[in-house]
Amino acid sequence: MHKIDLNSDIGESFGPYLLGMDEDVLKYVSSVNIACGWHAGDPMVMKKTVELAVKLGVKIGAHPGLPDLMGFGRRIMAVTPEEAKAYVIYQVGALKAFVEAAGSQLQHVKPHGALYNMAAKDPKLSRAIAEAVKSVDDNLVLVGLSGSCLVTAAEEIGLRAAREVFADRAYSRDGSLVPRNEPGSMIEDEALALTRVIGMIKVGQVTPLTGEDIKIQADTICVHGDNLKALEFLRKIRTGLEKEKIQIAPMQENLRHR
Amino acid sequence: MHKIDLNSDIGESFGPYLLGMDEDVLKYVSSVNIACGWHAGDPMVMKKTVELAVKLGVKIGAHPGLPDLMGFGRRIMAVTPEEAKAYVIYQVGALKAFVEAAGSQLQHVKPHGALYNMAAKDPKLSRAIAEAVKSVDDNLVLVGLSGSCLVTAAEEIGLRAAREVFADRAYSRDGSLVPRNEPGSMIEDEALALTRVIGMIKVGQVTPLTGEDIKIQADTICVHGDNLKALEFLRKIRTGLEKEKIQIAPMQENLRHR
Amino acid sequence: MHKIDLNSDIGESFGPYLLGMDEDVLKYVSSVNIACGWHAGDPMVMKKTVELAVKLGVKIGAHPGLPDLMGFGRRIMAVTPEEAKAYVIYQVGALKAFVEAAGSQLQHVKPHGALYNMAAKDPKLSRAIAEAVKSVDDNLVLVGLSGSCLVTAAEEIGLRAAREVFADRAYSRDGSLVPRNEPGSMIEDEALALTRVIGMIKVGQVTPLTGEDIKIQADTICVHGDNLKALEFLRKIRTGLEKEKIQIAPMQENLRHR
Amino acid sequence: MHKIDLNSDIGESFGPYLLGMDEDVLKYVSSVNIACGWHAGDPMVMKKTVELAVKLGVKIGAHPGLPDLMGFGRRIMAVTPEEAKAYVIYQVGALKAFVEAAGSQLQHVKPHGALYNMAAKDPKLSRAIAEAVKSVDDNLVLVGLSGSCLVTAAEEIGLRAAREVFADRAYSRDGSLVPRNEPGSMIEDEALALTRVIGMIKVGQVTPLTGEDIKIQADTICVHGDNLKALEFLRKIRTGLEKEKIQIAPMQENLRHR
Repeated sequence: MHKIDLNSDIGESFGPYLLGMDEDVLKYVSSVNIACGWHAGDPMVMKKTVELAVKLGVKIGAHPGLPDLMGFGRRIMAVTPEEAKAYVIYQVGALKAFVEAAGSQLQHVKPHGALYNMAAKDPKLSRAIAEAVKSVDDNLVLVGLSGSCLVTAAEEIGLRAAREVFADRAYSRDGSLVPRNEPGSMIEDEALALTRVIGMIKVGQVTPLTGEDIKIQADTICVHGDNLKALEFLRKIRTGLEKEKIQIAPMQENLRHR
Repeated sequence: MHKIDLNSDIGESFGPYLLGMDEDVLKYVSSVNIACGWHAGDPMVMKKTVELAVKLGVKIGAHPGLPDLMGFGRRIMAVTPEEAKAYVIYQVGALKAFVEAAGSQLQHVKPHGALYNMAAKDPKLSRAIAEAVKSVDDNLVLVGLSGSCLVTAAEEIGLRAAREVFADRAYSRDGSLVPRNEPGSMIEDEALALTRVIGMIKVGQVTPLTGEDIKIQADTICVHGDNLKALEFLRKIRTGLEKEKIQIAPMQENLRHR
Repeated sequence: MHKIDLNSDIGESFGPYLLGMDEDVLKYVSSVNIACGWHAGDPMVMKKTVELAVKLGVKIGAHPGLPDLMGFGRRIMAVTPEEAKAYVIYQVGALKAFVEAAGSQLQHVKPHGALYNMAAKDPKLSRAIAEAVKSVDDNLVLVGLSGSCLVTAAEEIGLRAAREVFADRAYSRDGSLVPRNEPGSMIEDEALALTRVIGMIKVGQVTPLTGEDIKIQADTICVHGDNLKALEFLRKIRTGLEKEKIQIAPMQENLRHR
Repeated sequence: MHKIDLNSDIGESFGPYLLGMDEDVLKYVSSVNIACGWHAGDPMVMKKTVELAVKLGVKIGAHPGLPDLMGFGRRIMAVTPEEAKAYVIYQVGALKAFVEAAGSQLQHVKPHGALYNMAAKDPKLSRAIAEAVKSVDDNLVLVGLSGSCLVTAAEEIGLRAAREVFADRAYSRDGSLVPRNEPGSMIEDEALALTRVIGMIKVGQVTPLTGEDIKIQADTICVHGDNLKALEFLRKIRTGLEKEKIQIAPMQENLRHR
């Protein structure tokens, strides 16, 4: 039987500012990535979000980002691998403390935004991030774009990696995501998106924007819950996967079978 | 044989800004309090400072502060106990990750500046801080002003507390520190400062600014290393204590004998 | 004919975080206080908000706050008068540049949150803030709680002050606001709130929580537009005032008649 | 008679952190670039630094940077032209307020670090920065690397530009600076550095790392005062220029002759 993880970014509120529909998202996903106070989130938000996820039995990951609250961690920033390493240790340590204070254990780490994208193509940056995660706890899973440097770097140093795929994004022939600002980058048709996801899980293939199907490994699917439409699509994905007898389970359970 | 801990605040540099003479201080103290990136310090500084302390065998504590880098965490800020709790978990978790990544273990937590002073007189704030520390790791020692709320709060919830005394500060009759801006608040005479410290350790008493000697318990002495003069005084204290057959040892060793 | 100003805090969004219904509020008020990037707001938000207010002909004030984005500038912080002075010059200067870049002129300055409340009772802090405002531009109006230190401080140094009153808050016998956490502090009855405001404008009196009516001067009324209910109340106040032949006009026009 | 401006970055301290030897530097330069609180500096530092420069009669410029205090504004960050524009208006407005509060007038704006370097090669970013400066005050001078996009952008929109050259840096054949991490990028020989500067001013030429002399226009020379050695070199440059009958004068005076 096929297993897949559904992960979503939550805990992105900050001080007086509310963002996301975390309580709703938590009903449909098996793993969450919680912001660590740098690109989003603050200690009060982290504590509340962790406690809610623990209560609902959803597995928790740290979602470290660049030091850019104003830009939500989405702007490329020329940090060195050494800096990225220290930034990841800091943020993962902070989130891990909230998880352990709530009586649970941290499952994974998924870099956020520009840090995730930069690492996907930069072996040195990926290596630094993987080493940071391993140095905090070598049982942690590192989530990276399927086929990217981050996955390779994790496995090279003996850290488990979860290959992430996207339901709503088009792929290039080399397995990378088509950048958001290019035509056709978003899969708007929800039925098609679901079909693609099922294909990635069961067949291990996806149809790129141009050319023949390419191989792709999927351990976890990135889903969103920022608004009602996203939430509705999340519900459909979950139902659609269950109809196909694909079990939704936290990434750490899928990876055990490797 | 008497034992005492010497603790100092280090790791207070930030980005391009250097502060303190950490490498020198580390030669003379048994414990250090490392800033956690809120009132001072940043992840690169934390990593480097932790690694140096581990290398030199000096025990490490987290030094969480208020979110006020510009004011160095020294300005009173009306944070709620819930906020303080979350802030302490966050910062202790971050520092702990660096300590564990360096192959060592966190020994203690000492709140910094205004947070330390506010907690000394506020039972609710002290309780929140003590609970934060315990929730991260119940083996941690919480350092508070000898005789203050922070010490009481820690012990009430079963957390070890280290009673901190000051060599260079005058005490009031109720055991509190004479505020810095009042006349006579600083003990300028180094020989007198040393005599007072020895008295606190051996006899458990100190002479307040006015009135008869008061009782005081001393587990750890706060010392400084910001400049050459401070460093010279630190050296004299260390030598003076050793002459009196008082052993300098990390706070966790003193507390075992309770 | 009576004139009164309606002022509201806007421009409080930050990076990815949206707050307030600024476009709607701007239809009903005569002056706005725009956040300056410390307790809320960022340069992109400031620019957009200023341009919108200029386009709609609403007069603009700077809304400087404490350096506490996480606490929205609402937490008391022990800044010195010298620090407050520098913080106000900085923030007013930044906002003023956007206003002038948009071809308009800054009308006023209203300190935000804890800075406003602290200044209301602290003559030295008020003096520092008034001097800051005057040093940037001596044509600016300083908005303070009616009867507070801030108003006195402004007028002592020859700066125009606008006396602010609140429609939805109870007053104490000494003219100060009843703190929000005390019973009866909020005027929930909208009709009563309107009647009170009209009385403050026309008669110069208000009924405090206990005791006989007290004198109060009103140059500007603080109104809110954070949600639909607040906006609906704002609309009612505006309509109610117009029915009473009270003209809604920017504070600088009211003050000319003094 | 030749005239040249000597400019230096000052006001880079922050909160408890001291940086630079501002009082000494101010004795030898004709213009200073004062940090605006984003990559360095804070309102207290800005106020004190501005007042000192005004007292000593040195012309003041704003030195806006990227929102990256931890990285001192030296790390490339993918800000959009619209963001850069808003960031520059904000910072220039803040600094300008301190200058006017001190009874003087802002002379120029020089982008800092990565913002300066990014703008040098990016016409859109340069245009946005130039428009920002002009929108605040069209009498301001914009300082950019001689021959760079920033100079072109300023002059295209009718803003005066000051062409900046470096005494201690090697040039490439296209007039750009040899990156710091490449061999030969720094001119270590102080006598050679001085000779080069004199050549740039009098002949309008400089010898690049390889190839024949290239043309270069010099309105202002960037000098440093971070340490005693830098300060000593600054003194030598000043004396050397005076010996050559080159007058040291604020950039706005040089530009009048164009």
